Amino acid sequence: MTTFLPFDQVRRIAVLGTGTIGASWTAYFLSRGFEVSAWDPGDGWKAKLKEFIETAWPQLETLGLEPGANSEALSFHDDPVSAVSTAHFVQENAPERLDIKKELYAEIDYALPAQAIFSTSTSGLILSDLVADLGTSHRFVVGHPFNPPHLIPLVEVVGARQTDPAVVEWAMAFYKHIGKHPILIRKEVPGHLSNRLQAALWREATWAVVNDLASVEDINAAISQGPGLRLALMGPHMIFNLTGGKDGFEKFYTHFAPAMEKWWETMQGEPELTPQLCDKIVAGLKDEAGNRTIDDLEAERDRKLLAILKAIKDAS
Amino acid sequence: MTTFLPFDQVRRIAVLGTGTIGASWTAYFLSRGFEVSAWDPGDGWKAKLKEFIETAWPQLETLGLEPGANSEALSFHDDPVSAVSTAHFVQENAPERLDIKKELYAEIDYALPAQAIFSTSTSGLILSDLVADLGTSHRFVVGHPFNPPHLIPLVEVVGARQTDPAVVEWAMAFYKHIGKHPILIRKEVPGHLSNRLQAALWREATWAVVNDLASVEDINAAISQGPGLRLALMGPHMIFNLTGGKDGFEKFYTHFAPAMEKWWETMQGEPELTPQLCDKIVAGLKDEAGNRTIDDLEAERDRKLLAILKAIKDAS
Repeated sequence: MTTFLPFDQVRRIAVLGTGTIGASWTAYFLSRGFEVSAWDPGDGWKAKLKEFIETAWPQLETLGLEPGANSEALSFHDDPVSAVSTAHFVQENAPERLDIKKELYAEIDYALPAQAIFSTSTSGLILSDLVADLGTSHRFVVGHPFNPPHLIPLVEVVGARQTDPAVVEWAMAFYKHIGKHPILIRKEVPGHLSNRLQAALWREATWAVVNDLASVEDINAAISQGPGLRLALMGPHMIFNLTGGKDGFEKFYTHFAPAMEKWWETMQGEPELTPQLCDKIVAGLKDEAGNRTIDDLEAERDRKLLAILKAIKDAS
Repeated sequence: MTTFLPFDQVRRIAVLGTGTIGASWTAYFLSRGFEVSAWDPGDGWKAKLKEFIETAWPQLETLGLEPGANSEALSFHDDPVSAVSTAHFVQENAPERLDIKKELYAEIDYALPAQAIFSTSTSGLILSDLVADLGTSHRFVVGHPFNPPHLIPLVEVVGARQTDPAVVEWAMAFYKHIGKHPILIRKEVPGHLSNRLQAALWREATWAVVNDLASVEDINAAISQGPGLRLALMGPHMIFNLTGGKDGFEKFYTHFAPAMEKWWETMQGEPELTPQLCDKIVAGLKDEAGNRTIDDLEAERDRKLLAILKAIKDAS
């Protein structure tokens, strides 16, 4: 069996693609004391990446830096091979297109150091398709984060058919080691797990718009002012464990789940994603946002996320 | 048109039924400076209610009491008529059974003071069915809270066919006035809105258990360590407004929603709620809970909820 690097020998991480997700990963890895070798094909990416790190760094300080962490332990590379060739771990965040990712993987295939693990942030593609033609396919894994990765702990880990099980195990342990909350997805399905759960929620929230059940703002509040506050603390099954009171989940299952089962029967419809529906949701979101721009909303989200994460940590 | 009480004249609230939900409402109303007239048919309810208030009060102090609020401004009544007869507002939390609630409503129908509004915490029943035979049906409304109501802001307000629209309006404004976040549900559907959204999420989370996509613990973490943290801050449509980056929801709708639409096609199945499935979820929840009892988990939820609510408030 192949052996992989002990974690104390992982010092350099290559980040391929430094858009929203890649820049956030970069900031996170730096905050955990790693050196980062970054590459991106876009115009002006170096300045944008630096700017992102400057904004994220005080947030990461609030959550606690690894001793020795340095926001400038960052090198910029003009091609992906150069970024990867001295890396102990790779986190790839190229656009969500099969052809683009396959081309990139083919390019770095021969340069991936012998013990390095390659992790892709892909949210929608199937890894077995992406690595089909590679010599190093057994060292590829999905490590799908949530936006923004420097704040949200979750990472979904999925192996391809070609992935060495020891690589999946290594990636799970590595993400945990660096302070993330990895979960193991046992099968390759579109959207992995977490985004499928979000898609199920959004389908019903969209059905509510189509059927005029409430305003878009009120539909949003139906989550964020209610169940959403609990969903930051525990998942759907654990919440219903507490719905059952002293008798726990069994009581929920026998007393409340049958009612939900009946509602499910009325929840089979897929709302048709028409342009009119988009306009209706956008108009509702404008009412809710008032004079806040997307930038304002994003800054507000990150400020409050940070506050929540710190509050949960302090109350643990 | 009927006129209802100005809010400064609402001083006394009747709470009918003081189980989990009713006790929590009682503590909340006391914290907002109201007198509460409570009634419950259960054994030992007075002692249990007092105990609940003692536990909740320090939490309510942390969130801020209304000047003059007094945890002892509470009277115990031996029948519902006596509790209701001098109340300016009624919050009813009887068991979720049509026959039980109808019997209770018939009993207090003649005693409901002329300007008082009657609000039911029902989560699953249709108000038009409940009030069909009442003389005061136009003053009944649904005010459905989330557990625990003394901490969670959301209240879903729904009128029956028989409800005076001015009563719905009054209830919306009253809940807002006392610090809740009311939302208006425009149609009577089973489960109102928020629990339907939860049911949609739970269906997919249950599908993931049936299909062995991940462990129960990891399925829970797929929400609580990821999207759940954002759902405490904003609802499903607003989250995807930010997924679109600078171009907002339109970009999400054209670039990402089509992929979700494809996943929906694979999400039509209703998991069959067999005893084996219950056992599998319960076993997973036990792994996750370790040696924490239901009481421990509940205390942990409330402690962290309080921390989150305070953090969001301070960061606003």
